[in-house]
Amino acid sequence: MRVLVIGANGAVGKHVVDRLKESDHQPVAMVRDTDQIPYFEEKNVETVLADLEKDFEKAFYNTEAVIFAAGSGPKTGADKTIIIDQEGAIEAADLAKKHGVNRFVMLSSMGADQPKQAEQIKHYLYAKHRADEHLKTSGLNYTILRPGRLTDEPASGKVNVHEGSPERGSVPRADVASVLVYLLSAPRAENKIFNLIEGSTPLSDVLAY
Amino acid sequence: MRVLVIGANGAVGKHVVDRLKESDHQPVAMVRDTDQIPYFEEKNVETVLADLEKDFEKAFYNTEAVIFAAGSGPKTGADKTIIIDQEGAIEAADLAKKHGVNRFVMLSSMGADQPKQAEQIKHYLYAKHRADEHLKTSGLNYTILRPGRLTDEPASGKVNVHEGSPERGSVPRADVASVLVYLLSAPRAENKIFNLIEGSTPLSDVLAY
Repeated sequence: MRVLVIGANGAVGKHVVDRLKESDHQPVAMVRDTDQIPYFEEKNVETVLADLEKDFEKAFYNTEAVIFAAGSGPKTGADKTIIIDQEGAIEAADLAKKHGVNRFVMLSSMGADQPKQAEQIKHYLYAKHRADEHLKTSGLNYTILRPGRLTDEPASGKVNVHEGSPERGSVPRADVASVLVYLLSAPRAENKIFNLIEGSTPLSDVLAY
Repeated sequence: MRVLVIGANGAVGKHVVDRLKESDHQPVAMVRDTDQIPYFEEKNVETVLADLEKDFEKAFYNTEAVIFAAGSGPKTGADKTIIIDQEGAIEAADLAKKHGVNRFVMLSSMGADQPKQAEQIKHYLYAKHRADEHLKTSGLNYTILRPGRLTDEPASGKVNVHEGSPERGSVPRADVASVLVYLLSAPRAENKIFNLIEGSTPLSDVLAY
């Protein structure tokens, strides 16, 4: 599939693009600034220049699937959490639906199921929750992935992917990316929500129950 | 009707309580802190102590109508915009629906129809937009009021209330409160959205077309 990666230049997004490149899929990296283009061109990855805060509809032409891995990050204010993490994701789902996208895989966050219970980053979890709720009722074929605390450790290739109550833990960003790409083509992942932490299951055995 | 005023201690909320007190309705002021209670008790207004950020379901027992006039205000960060203005309003609508509330009047903001076009306070307008969208699909009998820039001028009693495209302008908070209470009992206001600026129409003639 031709897969639009929203947030391709982010810490998870770059891994996602690499994993897609190794797969049968064709990544298209959505980037905001022209100076982000050479990084992907050197990898022979197609880019589309579009900004989540502006009109980014053109990014959806000929797109078969979307992996949404964008986030405003902790360095900006909570205003950007609303504008990017919540509303960027909501508009991306609306545009995906409008353009007949077949699959939408959302990078969410552990805790987004019950933001009111959160002790920290409550506003962020509310924003992710609201975006996830919108996706669930969008009519899109979706998968929502909610990883625990993200680390920059190298990929372990072994994970704990589960439905139901979240089990606290951390997980390398590189493994998160692998799971996002894996879920994209896993029929058992369709219209489901998963939590993810590092674990002992090889990626190839995920959902192989 | 027994009308729960959420945000009763706010700049608009206090006027709302006064207008309800003069009407056939019975206001119940939802306040967050015990030190906010005497102000209302001196006016013989019933209070309920509940916090939008915590569990405030008890405020809905025996409530027939709700006027939502709460807002985190400009002095707090955008994290509170998500938690109070957006999620507080969304949860209030859910609780109102759960408890069979007959009318829900929402104080929104001009510009909440098209937050993406906003040059200023875009995150705030997105939060209000998201709350309004939730209310519209809640199944509640709602009215959404979107005033222009709020001032502390005395009430003029004359307003411009209109559907359709917003017409920029300002309006005293005291008049906003009068319109909120007026709309509460106006059958023509049910399940509609209105913009409000100061104008030339006496309140008694609003929607009297």
